Amino acid sequence: MTTGKTRVDAKKLTDFTIRAFQKVGVPQEDAQITARILVATDLRGVDTHGIAHLAGYVRGVKGGRINRKPNVKVFSQAPATATMDGDQGLGFVVGHHAMMEAIHRAEKTGAGFITVRNSTHFGAGAPYAMIALEHDMVGIAMTSTGLGVVAPGSVKPAVGTNPLAVAVPAGKKPPFVLDMATSVVAGSKVELARREGKSMPEGWVIDKEGKPITDPTEYKVSSEGGLLPLGGTPALGAYKGFGLGVLVEILCGVLSGSSAIILKKPPEMTYCEHFFGALRIDSFLPVKNFKKSMDEMIEAFEALPTLPGARKIYAAGGYEAEIEKDRKANGIPLHFKVVEGLQGLAKELDIKYDL
Amino acid sequence: MTTGKTRVDAKKLTDFTIRAFQKVGVPQEDAQITARILVATDLRGVDTHGIAHLAGYVRGVKGGRINRKPNVKVFSQAPATATMDGDQGLGFVVGHHAMMEAIHRAEKTGAGFITVRNSTHFGAGAPYAMIALEHDMVGIAMTSTGLGVVAPGSVKPAVGTNPLAVAVPAGKKPPFVLDMATSVVAGSKVELARREGKSMPEGWVIDKEGKPITDPTEYKVSSEGGLLPLGGTPALGAYKGFGLGVLVEILCGVLSGSSAIILKKPPEMTYCEHFFGALRIDSFLPVKNFKKSMDEMIEAFEALPTLPGARKIYAAGGYEAEIEKDRKANGIPLHFKVVEGLQGLAKELDIKYDL
Repeated sequence: MTTGKTRVDAKKLTDFTIRAFQKVGVPQEDAQITARILVATDLRGVDTHGIAHLAGYVRGVKGGRINRKPNVKVFSQAPATATMDGDQGLGFVVGHHAMMEAIHRAEKTGAGFITVRNSTHFGAGAPYAMIALEHDMVGIAMTSTGLGVVAPGSVKPAVGTNPLAVAVPAGKKPPFVLDMATSVVAGSKVELARREGKSMPEGWVIDKEGKPITDPTEYKVSSEGGLLPLGGTPALGAYKGFGLGVLVEILCGVLSGSSAIILKKPPEMTYCEHFFGALRIDSFLPVKNFKKSMDEMIEAFEALPTLPGARKIYAAGGYEAEIEKDRKANGIPLHFKVVEGLQGLAKELDIKYDL
Repeated sequence: MTTGKTRVDAKKLTDFTIRAFQKVGVPQEDAQITARILVATDLRGVDTHGIAHLAGYVRGVKGGRINRKPNVKVFSQAPATATMDGDQGLGFVVGHHAMMEAIHRAEKTGAGFITVRNSTHFGAGAPYAMIALEHDMVGIAMTSTGLGVVAPGSVKPAVGTNPLAVAVPAGKKPPFVLDMATSVVAGSKVELARREGKSMPEGWVIDKEGKPITDPTEYKVSSEGGLLPLGGTPALGAYKGFGLGVLVEILCGVLSGSSAIILKKPPEMTYCEHFFGALRIDSFLPVKNFKKSMDEMIEAFEALPTLPGARKIYAAGGYEAEIEKDRKANGIPLHFKVVEGLQGLAKELDIKYDL
């Protein structure tokens, strides 16, 4: 797990991240929020969406593409719902406030749903959905992304990888946390295969003639060819993955008053939209009963017999909870290229490097 | 489209269905609700979930497994949410009332979410989600089903095909209507292949050793082997389809105070649970703007270039809207076996047959 990698303490990594954002003018509280989400993502093993991209976010703020002090506005016409304008702020900060807004509304009415326009990349969805857990709520987070996933029957990208995340509390067992791109794989999986010199299975990406690409160096995000929607081929349900991708596009892009990515022109394409939801469990049934029933279900899944090669059956989030336990105790293993990147960033910003 | 099939008028089919349910003691209003949903399903081309199963529902009522006059109860702790007990009534009737309850709550608070226990099979999910359309809302419907879908890495069924449906209004274009099993295919697709003597693609079903089954006569719902979750294999995202299936299980089975199907014993397994939601669009942005933006997105999808063999790119529900137009004008094509079944039912119940 740690070959060619350095274990880094989560607390130190958080402090380093806060320093980096503060140095480019992000207020302390916002820097703390962002650092917490980025490090939480790495703690759960989602190395593609966390600290590895820190420099990109910091440079986005430094260069002015991301607004360091956004004036986030909430427009509400009803107790359970609202629309937010993120004022092109850091997606982490905007997303955190929107998720908290959903939770506050669910506290009052049982349900809270917030659509957000004019935001920027918020990392992974799970950390937002998971804020709901400590409030004994079901949490939901979605985001629109750049164009890259083809419609079944076409080779032209129609939607983004448009991930959706849902977190549900359990009792003794780890929470159910589903965080999935609505494409077969997220673009970062292709990047990973490229970095590691591995080939991709057929069914991830097609070229401009609709033929599978297995060499990751052959794939570039372009106007023709792209990632396949979950399901892959029409016979195996690609219209379902595409439908889910379009649904995320609707709840984020259309409902927020922005638009679907397929209609955007630069510089609109720089910004993205999110959708957050919270459902208060005790407005449906006693939390204690719910958690007991969740535990029983998860235990039944874990007791399922496994095929050769499969170690254990998990409910979504169970595997990530095991990784988190290890990384909290032993540090987060960072790839040497990520470490080099952080060292370079420290030099560029003239901040202390102590990882 | 009509080979070996008889075109039947939707109005006549509705009236016949009402007669059948009234004859076994279902109150007129409930018979009307049920008939409307069943025929709406056939009108949209979903022949596997509509009138073909009429006899099963009617006999369920006749034999007492389905409660003809349920005392449906609503338990509410908050303005936007509620839990319902369906009292083992017809899933169509219980589902209709629950969806209306979600809509009434969304009228007041912007969002409405209802979980339902102790119900029975409600047919397809789309007709419930689509009730929201005439209220300018986003509609959501989910249901738990019988055990049949394996967890990735196991050959033992862990969840049902657990479909989810979402309907979103558009302006001039047909509404977005996604209605999908969270498995690669619904069990009825296997039935269809069996009836038509066709083989199945690899990736639909595995046997008790985890090997693909392509002969539909070899597959029976049993304790080992089963339908694959959407994604199919772990490398192509099966954990996503499984995660979605478990999510439906949670929102229906666990949240309603019933339990996950994996824990149920007979006779509990006879009954199922649902989950409904509604989001009021004008609590987020003006309906007019929303519908215009939906139309623009759908038109952009329809304008995408197609691969050889693909006629046109649709947003979810677009193809079904074309079928509906044809069937409303020219009647619903019923397979001769379905017609025979309806004739037999008419005889059994001693009701008028005029289709």
